Amino acid sequence: MNITKLTNAVSLKRQLEGGNEEQLKTVRQVLQDVRENGNAALRKYSEMWDGISLDSFRVTPEEIEAAVQNFDPQLKVDLEEAAANIRYYHEAQKRDDYKLPLDNGSWLAQRIIPLDAVGLYVPGGLAAYPSSVLMNVIPAQVAGVERIVITSPAGRDGKLPDAVLVAASILGVDEIYKVGGAQAIAALAYGTESIAPVDKITGPGNIFVALAKREVFGEVAIDMIAGPSEIAVLADETAYADEVAADLLSQAEHDALACAVLITTSERLAQDVALEVEKQLSELPKEGIARKSIENFGQIYVAENMEQAIDAVNSLAPEHLEIVTTNAEEDALKVRHAGAIFIGRYSSEPVGDYFAGTNHVLPTNSTARFASGLNVDDFIKKTNVVYYTEKTWEENAPKIARLARMEGLEGHARAVESRGWTKGDK
Amino acid sequence: MNITKLTNAVSLKRQLEGGNEEQLKTVRQVLQDVRENGNAALRKYSEMWDGISLDSFRVTPEEIEAAVQNFDPQLKVDLEEAAANIRYYHEAQKRDDYKLPLDNGSWLAQRIIPLDAVGLYVPGGLAAYPSSVLMNVIPAQVAGVERIVITSPAGRDGKLPDAVLVAASILGVDEIYKVGGAQAIAALAYGTESIAPVDKITGPGNIFVALAKREVFGEVAIDMIAGPSEIAVLADETAYADEVAADLLSQAEHDALACAVLITTSERLAQDVALEVEKQLSELPKEGIARKSIENFGQIYVAENMEQAIDAVNSLAPEHLEIVTTNAEEDALKVRHAGAIFIGRYSSEPVGDYFAGTNHVLPTNSTARFASGLNVDDFIKKTNVVYYTEKTWEENAPKIARLARMEGLEGHARAVESRGWTKGDK
Repeated sequence: MNITKLTNAVSLKRQLEGGNEEQLKTVRQVLQDVRENGNAALRKYSEMWDGISLDSFRVTPEEIEAAVQNFDPQLKVDLEEAAANIRYYHEAQKRDDYKLPLDNGSWLAQRIIPLDAVGLYVPGGLAAYPSSVLMNVIPAQVAGVERIVITSPAGRDGKLPDAVLVAASILGVDEIYKVGGAQAIAALAYGTESIAPVDKITGPGNIFVALAKREVFGEVAIDMIAGPSEIAVLADETAYADEVAADLLSQAEHDALACAVLITTSERLAQDVALEVEKQLSELPKEGIARKSIENFGQIYVAENMEQAIDAVNSLAPEHLEIVTTNAEEDALKVRHAGAIFIGRYSSEPVGDYFAGTNHVLPTNSTARFASGLNVDDFIKKTNVVYYTEKTWEENAPKIARLARMEGLEGHARAVESRGWTKGDK
Repeated sequence: MNITKLTNAVSLKRQLEGGNEEQLKTVRQVLQDVRENGNAALRKYSEMWDGISLDSFRVTPEEIEAAVQNFDPQLKVDLEEAAANIRYYHEAQKRDDYKLPLDNGSWLAQRIIPLDAVGLYVPGGLAAYPSSVLMNVIPAQVAGVERIVITSPAGRDGKLPDAVLVAASILGVDEIYKVGGAQAIAALAYGTESIAPVDKITGPGNIFVALAKREVFGEVAIDMIAGPSEIAVLADETAYADEVAADLLSQAEHDALACAVLITTSERLAQDVALEVEKQLSELPKEGIARKSIENFGQIYVAENMEQAIDAVNSLAPEHLEIVTTNAEEDALKVRHAGAIFIGRYSSEPVGDYFAGTNHVLPTNSTARFASGLNVDDFIKKTNVVYYTEKTWEENAPKIARLARMEGLEGHARAVESRGWTKGDK
């Protein structure tokens, strides 16, 4: 890894793949086709792109049961424990309505109402990602969403991976469809004869899925469009180089566009980590991907002091931040911009990817400046409620009418004045 | 107004103006120009489109002071009282960090961190909208945002309206720029020599502003793209027809595309409101706009019973909902989808537009199904924090490594296993 002396604000920003015109055209066609032709369009694209011919899209109870029977019991226990941890962390995000008394019996309130229905897209491909099922479904369940749908492309055998079905089964989600790609997003947004539409779509996907989510945004809600993974490690001379290197590589192995950065006050650590990364890279199954990531986006910065190092972290606003310093807990409080923070040597980033309980869907590409990881708030909405009594109205109507007239809105003023005494006895 | 028997689910959906290719092209040019040429580009567009030549963009303290001196003292008091009410309502939205203990001294936490800087766009044109300043700035202040910027196009006299400057002054906001249109959004997103960039842009604007906000979305956060105003009134035979009609017209006068709907269980009220709307329309200063709105999007539905009426409200998911029924408070609890709810005869909708304290920036076009009005959460972000002790790590590392390997991510497993006893004494 390249080592640089830290001088200016640093930046993670990469030019990310936004899709090209042709891809966008395809996506728009698919969306329109599903909107107009429903199931028939879904069938057509499943045959065309996934190479499978489906009579019905929904996974049957028997298929779920078979997946559970097939599955490694130890891994099932691990997933169950992870699910319990995730639920524990997210339960604390639940919020209550509030009601504020005003004078004369009037009040204002904010009601918290869960969304009616949400859809989770789970990508297909070579690996199965049950952790993604846990991280997306549990916050929605904690929020109180009644209908949770999963959709994912089936393999050539017409099946979904056991791990995905087991994760869904652990959470009690049984509305699962074998539909992938932009057509799945269309089905969730518009509905078809057999898939009722949802109010929000979450979950990662390939460029077609991402473009489709952008297109239906507004019609339904979507989560963020996630970029490639990022990790920054903030470390001083107390950190172990092999551990830091392993953690950097854990994110580099995700994607050739992933970004792994070390910011350290220790010149020695910088040197050692660079060597360790090289050594560990050569032994990594995903060496190809990880090496590209490290070569293109990997960087080690040597800071003059911790203050400068923390400034650099804040200008990065990384998705994941590990802090392995003498005063890690205090240093963490100085960080204003990071999706998730892992404090101390034993809080290796994958701890949060799978198990600790925090969400692993996090803001990338410096959007941690203004965005949050997926959480219970993403699955509720807030409604303002106003209750004015006659007395409160009487006291305030003249003020409200004046303010409305100042803005040239006479109809507003008249509406407020239309009540009670202003028009005599009724 | 047209009266229909309520049979099926009803819908507000209108085909909204999305801008055309040429407008989008212009906006993209402006954004790029400001990005590359900063102040020079701002000056160019101010001359070209606003017909003014500006040496400096920032409103001076003297200009603010002069506006305050010029301003009707009674209106200033009204604005101050409105600001206090809005602050009272939004203070209750503030949230605390939480920290959850785990076994063995480990913990998880969620930190709430305000955004560093936000920009509010205030539209220019014939009227001034100080209420918009209050509604956008106060939640940001309550959230703890340190830097709040206002930008608005100056009039031909090179000035901003007194009312806007007075509202800003009441709130203590003094970073105000005389820049409007897409170039203002560009300045807020990218910064120029004299305007530092912000993290989030809120506020309404014309089609160029809306398109520019969509374009910079991702680079910075934006609030929703607001559509034309909507009101639904749910009423039974106890409601007064003239009051209902006045409230319907208060939203119709906003925009020819605004939407005003009455859903009632009383055939008599339906008839009376239709007559009243016609009568009041003819006396309204903005009759032209309001009449178009009522003709195109106004509707009265007569429901068989309150249950059916409430179902219709939920399928509308209106921006504003008034409930004027015998059991209004109970009926309100059955509403799942509305931006804001106004309960009872004295809670006329403009009460919330100006004064009660709830926010008037609300989700339109049925997006209340999944979206909320502007609130303090829009100006903070949440950061997950994980702290694992050696003991917790030791207990859970094998599980985490198994889960990572199940997903084919060997690097993740190795990172977790790289600690402590797995590699012997260090």
